Amino acid sequence: MKILLLNPNTTAEVTELLYAAGHRAASPGTELVPMTAKRGVPYIATRAEAQIGGAIALEMLAEAGAGFDAAIIAAFGDPGLLGARELFSFPVVGLAEAAMLTACMLGQRFSIVTFSPTLAPWYDECVVMHGLETRCTGIRALDESFQSISDVQAEKEDALVRLANLAVERDYADVVILSGAPLAGLADKVKDRIPVPVIDPVAAAVRQAETLAVLKPLKARAGTFRRPGPKPTTGLAEPLAAVIEHRDEKQGGTR
Amino acid sequence: MKILLLNPNTTAEVTELLYAAGHRAASPGTELVPMTAKRGVPYIATRAEAQIGGAIALEMLAEAGAGFDAAIIAAFGDPGLLGARELFSFPVVGLAEAAMLTACMLGQRFSIVTFSPTLAPWYDECVVMHGLETRCTGIRALDESFQSISDVQAEKEDALVRLANLAVERDYADVVILSGAPLAGLADKVKDRIPVPVIDPVAAAVRQAETLAVLKPLKARAGTFRRPGPKPTTGLAEPLAAVIEHRDEKQGGTR
Amino acid sequence: MKILLLNPNTTAEVTELLYAAGHRAASPGTELVPMTAKRGVPYIATRAEAQIGGAIALEMLAEAGAGFDAAIIAAFGDPGLLGARELFSFPVVGLAEAAMLTACMLGQRFSIVTFSPTLAPWYDECVVMHGLETRCTGIRALDESFQSISDVQAEKEDALVRLANLAVERDYADVVILSGAPLAGLADKVKDRIPVPVIDPVAAAVRQAETLAVLKPLKARAGTFRRPGPKPTTGLAEPLAAVIEHRDEKQGGTR
Amino acid sequence: MKILLLNPNTTAEVTELLYAAGHRAASPGTELVPMTAKRGVPYIATRAEAQIGGAIALEMLAEAGAGFDAAIIAAFGDPGLLGARELFSFPVVGLAEAAMLTACMLGQRFSIVTFSPTLAPWYDECVVMHGLETRCTGIRALDESFQSISDVQAEKEDALVRLANLAVERDYADVVILSGAPLAGLADKVKDRIPVPVIDPVAAAVRQAETLAVLKPLKARAGTFRRPGPKPTTGLAEPLAAVIEHRDEKQGGTR
Amino acid sequence: MKILLLNPNTTAEVTELLYAAGHRAASPGTELVPMTAKRGVPYIATRAEAQIGGAIALEMLAEAGAGFDAAIIAAFGDPGLLGARELFSFPVVGLAEAAMLTACMLGQRFSIVTFSPTLAPWYDECVVMHGLETRCTGIRALDESFQSISDVQAEKEDALVRLANLAVERDYADVVILSGAPLAGLADKVKDRIPVPVIDPVAAAVRQAETLAVLKPLKARAGTFRRPGPKPTTGLAEPLAAVIEHRDEKQGGTR
Amino acid sequence: MKILLLNPNTTAEVTELLYAAGHRAASPGTELVPMTAKRGVPYIATRAEAQIGGAIALEMLAEAGAGFDAAIIAAFGDPGLLGARELFSFPVVGLAEAAMLTACMLGQRFSIVTFSPTLAPWYDECVVMHGLETRCTGIRALDESFQSISDVQAEKEDALVRLANLAVERDYADVVILSGAPLAGLADKVKDRIPVPVIDPVAAAVRQAETLAVLKPLKARAGTFRRPGPKPTTGLAEPLAAVIEHRDEKQGGTR
Repeated sequence: MKILLLNPNTTAEVTELLYAAGHRAASPGTELVPMTAKRGVPYIATRAEAQIGGAIALEMLAEAGAGFDAAIIAAFGDPGLLGARELFSFPVVGLAEAAMLTACMLGQRFSIVTFSPTLAPWYDECVVMHGLETRCTGIRALDESFQSISDVQAEKEDALVRLANLAVERDYADVVILSGAPLAGLADKVKDRIPVPVIDPVAAAVRQAETLAVLKPLKARAGTFRRPGPKPTTGLAEPLAAVIEHRDEKQGGTR
Repeated sequence: MKILLLNPNTTAEVTELLYAAGHRAASPGTELVPMTAKRGVPYIATRAEAQIGGAIALEMLAEAGAGFDAAIIAAFGDPGLLGARELFSFPVVGLAEAAMLTACMLGQRFSIVTFSPTLAPWYDECVVMHGLETRCTGIRALDESFQSISDVQAEKEDALVRLANLAVERDYADVVILSGAPLAGLADKVKDRIPVPVIDPVAAAVRQAETLAVLKPLKARAGTFRRPGPKPTTGLAEPLAAVIEHRDEKQGGTR
Repeated sequence: MKILLLNPNTTAEVTELLYAAGHRAASPGTELVPMTAKRGVPYIATRAEAQIGGAIALEMLAEAGAGFDAAIIAAFGDPGLLGARELFSFPVVGLAEAAMLTACMLGQRFSIVTFSPTLAPWYDECVVMHGLETRCTGIRALDESFQSISDVQAEKEDALVRLANLAVERDYADVVILSGAPLAGLADKVKDRIPVPVIDPVAAAVRQAETLAVLKPLKARAGTFRRPGPKPTTGLAEPLAAVIEHRDEKQGGTR
Repeated sequence: MKILLLNPNTTAEVTELLYAAGHRAASPGTELVPMTAKRGVPYIATRAEAQIGGAIALEMLAEAGAGFDAAIIAAFGDPGLLGARELFSFPVVGLAEAAMLTACMLGQRFSIVTFSPTLAPWYDECVVMHGLETRCTGIRALDESFQSISDVQAEKEDALVRLANLAVERDYADVVILSGAPLAGLADKVKDRIPVPVIDPVAAAVRQAETLAVLKPLKARAGTFRRPGPKPTTGLAEPLAAVIEHRDEKQGGTR
Repeated sequence: MKILLLNPNTTAEVTELLYAAGHRAASPGTELVPMTAKRGVPYIATRAEAQIGGAIALEMLAEAGAGFDAAIIAAFGDPGLLGARELFSFPVVGLAEAAMLTACMLGQRFSIVTFSPTLAPWYDECVVMHGLETRCTGIRALDESFQSISDVQAEKEDALVRLANLAVERDYADVVILSGAPLAGLADKVKDRIPVPVIDPVAAAVRQAETLAVLKPLKARAGTFRRPGPKPTTGLAEPLAAVIEHRDEKQGGTR
Repeated sequence: MKILLLNPNTTAEVTELLYAAGHRAASPGTELVPMTAKRGVPYIATRAEAQIGGAIALEMLAEAGAGFDAAIIAAFGDPGLLGARELFSFPVVGLAEAAMLTACMLGQRFSIVTFSPTLAPWYDECVVMHGLETRCTGIRALDESFQSISDVQAEKEDALVRLANLAVERDYADVVILSGAPLAGLADKVKDRIPVPVIDPVAAAVRQAETLAVLKPLKARAGTFRRPGPKPTTGLAEPLAAVIEHRDEKQGGTR
């Protein structure tokens, strides 16, 4: 099974963190293929960046092409997820979505714990996009500056554990999700210090992508996620243009 | 990995259907252990039967004892699920829950298609229990009598496919869930005749139980799903009494 | 008028408290018949215990048999209520339901004040089951150990009054409900010390049961609360088995 | 026990219907005191009329003065209810409120069946005001002209029964409420022809008013329903002005 | 363009504040016509007063008669708004409605900041009436006594600014609305001291009334806001009676 | 006053329709500056296209630069709106947002009537994004093929009027919104044939943009819509990169 692990951020170190934590959760036969955005911002953190980064995620999926059993958009906030689900025939899973739905099987309400308050409104709107407001106790974000996005999890480990414990004590969280992508792998290190189940989004996403790949649901041919008909484009990245114009099919693509 | 497939109904033929469809979705190393209720009703279909069947599910989990990596309560409607999640240390997944959360990764809104209108109010309340009202287009139930619970999927295959197509056309479902337990295995047979992804609840549940077993979240030691303290009981089935009274621990149980 | 006051807990002292407070609220002609669970736990406090206790409540209703004008399931959290409403032809009222609906006529939002944090998640889910989330300011629970379930109201009177006042000041509660069953009778003692209307659940439940008995609505013959058709059972308590199998009718029962 | 049955419409025949049906549901010792609006419209049916009629209801309550144990605002839609609850020290119950809350104890979802489509938006907003949207399957209104408001229940009996049956079959109503005031007494006549419990709002309201009178909750001294402080007024009906200016107290009123 | 600025309170000084702030926001060609209630209370602040004040607002609109392009009901809480929208053919805008809808274009969530806790429950119900619960972070009210309604904005300027800043810091408000009518004009004075956009309700209302006047939507001839048919009345203010009885039309009114 | 009318579609004819209808609604002193996307698709109609088109809208706003008092993103569905509100200091209004909020002042519930079923899921998610679900009766879309996007309003005028009438009769819409951009100007032509107020989104948007420009709210300096701090970018369109990197300020920009 071949799963695309798509990081819509330009920071390769974050892709490495994602790959390492994702790999640990993967089944023996699963090949995880990492891919880092070549354009965009180092780390998507606002609505505007998610708008841009989601469009870049679509470009990357188009460029990666056929041959994957499933793909993961590996930014908590799930930029471009619903558009990708519409456009491509293989299953696409979001980091936030996978983490939240997995958390739902471990308790009635989860808390999202993260390292920067800038992320909170975007994450908040992601919870609403997935219709999971009643399952979420809210978002708790550290309000401290940090050195670098790729080391934030080591630098802030203790503060994040304290925050997770607050989410349990004050917000009555049954489950804690440590997000986003730069915290990949942290859950495993700190789970003994947090008294409720702790979710690592990329581990959850790899398992959920495998599940969709195994269940092999047919691509929608009706409803709101069927592939849109061909449409002319101007000035878009060539692989994405090819997908929207349906030129991929002429090339024998099974995308 | 050892997963308990617990059928809270007394009909062994339904357990066989569940086992066959669950087994097909399981990973190579997974051992699926079926268990049929020794007391209760042939097929849980109403609120009263779910109340009783949920209590029986707790008895069965207590009796099955330690040694499982995860358990599935294999009745759509998830009788006893939240109580089980509270009481036992291994992860417990519900058939409805697993099907609905998996469906959420394939579209914005799913429809639940089933074979008897008697089931609809119970399923409806199950959707509310999981807080997924905005993700569900509703429940569509056949209103035709059938010969037997264990053959209903063969007898009503065409009618169920028609109903699923109605759910797509009229209710704008992005995904269809064929439920409950007696329809186990049907999704795979009919998926070409339904133009959106089709979910088989037991296949989804086996994969989700595996996922929780692999992620190995620690049992909650705080929050609303921590194990309740010991409490005396009167007249309960012995293994369940032992769990509630914490006598299992004295016997070296790891439950 | 004959009303069954069913305590699904095994503690007879709690039944006595319920009876005393219920009796004070009853109309002159009302005969209140108390009944204590013969099996189960001393005091239902968790989801698992509610699952079991609800099934026991159904057994008790079946055993009590015909001849009642209405019944009260006298545990806040209403274990087994919806199943009972489905199965039996006489009206059945829950303690939480009666208290909350009565509170709705005295203000826009009520607070549930109780003596143990263990009860909060169960009560919370009960509010959701009744669709009254927007009418409830939340649940405030004491977090102090207590000597015995039957004396907790005396021991913690002052602390509960302080908590009720907090619910008014901080949560903007218009009405306070003192729950569950072990607090029966407390409302009357402390109402002068709480500056909003205070509800005693069992007093409300007795009055609401009388109301349904007087209005004499016909048992549903359609819809989701019609009595289910006969169904075979295995290993259930005999009176409940008789009800589910419709053997009660053959015996001329009017249940 | 003395209960004020306040009809905020100017049609005395409707008051008579309300009194007759209310009287049948009342307890032996209850004295029901009818009162018909001296100004306003024959039958409140729109938002504008409810705005005016609610203000008139407050005038009537002020005029009726002290000496009542409880009052009923006997127009479905509950004009002036929340203001009355704020202003007066005796309990005040609305016709819609009492009917809907009583219906909640007989099934999960009720339908409101009425005789004119003009009433639907006002009733709809009343359901929202009480936060009962999830308990209501909607409003079904006859769309036929009728002779007179005081005979509409006789003239349209069959059509209303058909509509109630539609509410059960198509909307899955567990309970039917026959409203508003001009249908007082109809429920009892037709309940055999509707296969779910049928609520007569005035019967429910009389019983609920009695319940509040018996439970004797203290008037709120804090929270959003405490009596507002004294305030000068200009040009209001004298008894209402006296209440708002707190001149009633100086006269030894216990209102 | 001629816009009626209707103050349903009897305090002329508040009308002057409203006029001054409204005038500053008005387009060059707009004539703003102020009107102060001749009966009622100095300042509407409770549910009961809103019930009465809303009826008075309808009387005032009827009395003002034809010749206006739009009207503003200038009390935050929008007393009588929906009834007015039903009854009259020119557009009618509420102060709260205009402020909240305008705020929605400047951020995802607004806070309502006001000068008295008495106003909070009424404002809260107004938010619900407009279905904007998810856009509102709540209501923050000063809890300090003040000298006079017409000077409260000067007296409490600093305290209100502090409160607005709290709404931003603690409630995560994207926008602040300074309400109600007695704070007209304050937003402009203090906007530099509040770090998010600040809305002056009357400025918003004047602009929204102009917008409706320019767009010239036709009065509804169907749906829930069509003008109700003629109906007899008793004892109502003559101009309002004329409107309800449709006697205005006979006089060539274009109302 | 200078308002940017930004069409994120590449079809210049649609920009012309928008400009013509927008111009008619504009105030005398308003200069409306049209701008058509140079890259993208002829007409945004799906989630994927909205993801891409929203990113293009941000590029266009950055390119247009300082000097505008407000901007309109003139595609119903509001692609890129929340990101734009975050990034730029002038007010930005969406076509859907302006239409829906304006409709809210003309009735309780609006219907969105459009020319293609492809648009419905995107519009639906836009309603949710704005939290207006309870104000919307749903989306009604023609299901007929059409010749060209720029003539569809003429070709389908009668069918759209029929659909709007259905929305009134069947869905109980109080207001109808004719959307999206290719229907600009149609509302005015057909309003006599639809018995409730009809909204032209671009007319509403021009007026709402003017309103925000007149009220001159300060750009948020706190909360979730403050401008994000500078961040490096790779491979983005130069003007947008300059905005995200805060290089625009160094050039004396007032953006």
